[in-house]
Amino acid sequence: MAITATEPAPTAAHAFGPAVALSCRECGERYELTPRFACEFCFGPLEVAYEFGSVSREEIERGPKNIWRYAGLLPVPGDVQNLPNMNPGLTPLVRADRLAAELGLRSLSVKDDSANPTHSFKDRVVAMAVEAARTFGFHTLSCSSTGNLAGAVGAAAARAGFKSCVFIPAGLEEGKVVMAAVYGGQVVAIDGNYDDVNRFCSELIGDPAGEDWGFVNVNLRPYYGEGSKTLAYEIAEQLGWRVPDQIIIPIASGSQLTKIDKGFRELIELGLVEDRPYRIFGAQATGCSPVAKAWESGHDVIQPVKPDTIAKSLAIGNPADGPYVLDICKRTGGAVAHVSDAEVVDSIKLLARTEGVFAETAGGVTTGVLRKLLAEGALDPEAETVVLNTGDGLKTLNAVDSGVTATIRPSLDAFQDAGLA
Amino acid sequence: MAITATEPAPTAAHAFGPAVALSCRECGERYELTPRFACEFCFGPLEVAYEFGSVSREEIERGPKNIWRYAGLLPVPGDVQNLPNMNPGLTPLVRADRLAAELGLRSLSVKDDSANPTHSFKDRVVAMAVEAARTFGFHTLSCSSTGNLAGAVGAAAARAGFKSCVFIPAGLEEGKVVMAAVYGGQVVAIDGNYDDVNRFCSELIGDPAGEDWGFVNVNLRPYYGEGSKTLAYEIAEQLGWRVPDQIIIPIASGSQLTKIDKGFRELIELGLVEDRPYRIFGAQATGCSPVAKAWESGHDVIQPVKPDTIAKSLAIGNPADGPYVLDICKRTGGAVAHVSDAEVVDSIKLLARTEGVFAETAGGVTTGVLRKLLAEGALDPEAETVVLNTGDGLKTLNAVDSGVTATIRPSLDAFQDAGLA
Repeated sequence: MAITATEPAPTAAHAFGPAVALSCRECGERYELTPRFACEFCFGPLEVAYEFGSVSREEIERGPKNIWRYAGLLPVPGDVQNLPNMNPGLTPLVRADRLAAELGLRSLSVKDDSANPTHSFKDRVVAMAVEAARTFGFHTLSCSSTGNLAGAVGAAAARAGFKSCVFIPAGLEEGKVVMAAVYGGQVVAIDGNYDDVNRFCSELIGDPAGEDWGFVNVNLRPYYGEGSKTLAYEIAEQLGWRVPDQIIIPIASGSQLTKIDKGFRELIELGLVEDRPYRIFGAQATGCSPVAKAWESGHDVIQPVKPDTIAKSLAIGNPADGPYVLDICKRTGGAVAHVSDAEVVDSIKLLARTEGVFAETAGGVTTGVLRKLLAEGALDPEAETVVLNTGDGLKTLNAVDSGVTATIRPSLDAFQDAGLA
Repeated sequence: MAITATEPAPTAAHAFGPAVALSCRECGERYELTPRFACEFCFGPLEVAYEFGSVSREEIERGPKNIWRYAGLLPVPGDVQNLPNMNPGLTPLVRADRLAAELGLRSLSVKDDSANPTHSFKDRVVAMAVEAARTFGFHTLSCSSTGNLAGAVGAAAARAGFKSCVFIPAGLEEGKVVMAAVYGGQVVAIDGNYDDVNRFCSELIGDPAGEDWGFVNVNLRPYYGEGSKTLAYEIAEQLGWRVPDQIIIPIASGSQLTKIDKGFRELIELGLVEDRPYRIFGAQATGCSPVAKAWESGHDVIQPVKPDTIAKSLAIGNPADGPYVLDICKRTGGAVAHVSDAEVVDSIKLLARTEGVFAETAGGVTTGVLRKLLAEGALDPEAETVVLNTGDGLKTLNAVDSGVTATIRPSLDAFQDAGLA
């Protein structure tokens, strides 16, 4: 139900911290903080609206060593750090001097989100959804997932004492399936791709079987999405309270990119960082590049595609936030680009060899796009640059063909004979 | 060369921080801070000796969010945080209320070292060895490894600009092999078990082919081992500067357990924590339990065994520090126990289901021993207890049989028919 200016939102004051309403991204219509995700009037996506109090760098720096240091900027209760939650975040911003030297960049850092509890950035968004689900009284957590999200939901549900039932496309990497299932919830594989899984979940949410469930990326999506803002907060804090000049972000649904932009703008508005221009670049794998294709052709409309890429965590053929991604990349002077699967693998190895970071395929996509845009002159080699790695190479082992150099008997002769000495 | 009291150790003052010498654990003979690991006189293991300056809780708390916050207690230069290193540590101490409730414990925490950069505690010890190797001018890093160490060395060598060549037993888990190889160094599989690999490395170090190499767990071992002390420092700091009453630690070589004890004692001696008794418990898998067997039979001597367990990261049949482990567990009123592979798997699932922590087999061993010792009355259910998870379930996927609940078509009918609604 839409709310008027005089209507109170009683639960919000405590449970959702500085959040005051849901607001339609398209028409601005406002709603109470309830489990809903689309505007009744224009069907636009809802997002969380805030009335921030004063927030200082010092308060944040004194806070917990995870995303809850930014609780004052998120739709969560002030005592969130005491609730059973996975406590993701404050992942390393790795100073990538060796990779920078190899690429001819002056200053490069890798935001390495493989350090999160289930080793992908999804722990951030799920942590937000768990708190909303707790407030709304849901007992089962669910999601449609390309793999990483299923693991994050399974783990977070276990930690917080929820049941879980997650939906994945059949044929995912073994690591992602085991990681989703080991926490004891239900894992249902759907014959089809991620977009089929997503459509199924939208049906289920309208059915009695699913109506009491908290689907983290459907009916809890406005809360869930806010977790991605913490990537922006952390990067700025870790750079010494400064927004980077250039940042390369992977695009699946496009939500993460839009929320990182939102996070940077909030920091600027709150006076926590200097108001300087920054450029946002989106990265896709060629085999699922509907946003990059729209960017190349100058269109505002995204043509859905059927994904065919090893970058399964980015394999969303009909990205809901695609149009907003185009807007942001245009507004900030960035771009959207894509790289082939071969370039993805090559970039995973480059990042591993130079910086000791073993990225998931999504990290190969962003690193590949970094190289490509540098070579094309679209990125400034003198500007402070950040590239995101959102997942862990251990979950996409099959993407790389790395193995032993040799197998030998335990003797010096065998070592010499194998040409290793 | 052994040093006299008047002989200076010129490099030590800067490069090794508060460390002043190597000291034989058996006879106390002191040596310069050089790449050596055994006493010339009694063949006892060498360890780092310090002259600590004043170290305060406040200084530590202001430090970097990784092990270098304890630089004043480690054999590293004061500016170590600015050198290219993996910066491991400050991993979560997870408050495990749901697991505690299920086991009937009042207060339980899991120290989850899967959050380290290559997802095992080995990043801590390798970070120390890298700094020593840098000081000694080695250009190649090497190790014998049951898997986790190989990945940690590969990554750290890449980050710091060293070459690497690591040795593993043939037949390791795929995740561990790929993770060792992806960083671009050499990975050599040895036909044999870990003890064969270790013997081979000891030969290689005396051969011209290996004499210029820094073997992190052989000629750099005294420095390397000190990294495990940071587990003790972090646990105490995360508990609010308090040593836990009871702690369960896995035993491979036994080094980690001895260094955690050393870390607790240092904190007490420096006045950083209250001097209260603590009890240390060692955990092994039944299929490789030479220390637990010696404990059970009351012997001081460890009988080597041929390992046969799924807990490959603990599969050291001839544990070098076994006798010291027995001493420490006896001195502190602890114990050493072992659990079967079936109990390991069951405990991995228990930890995942209750706390959302997906442990490696080594974490199943410690959690299994926790259950066993509680059931036997050897652990006090009212005492503050910490259990270590030293690695990541993603690297030992084959140990658990978790998979999808069902595979269905994307329709509500199929969902109902599968009995999922």
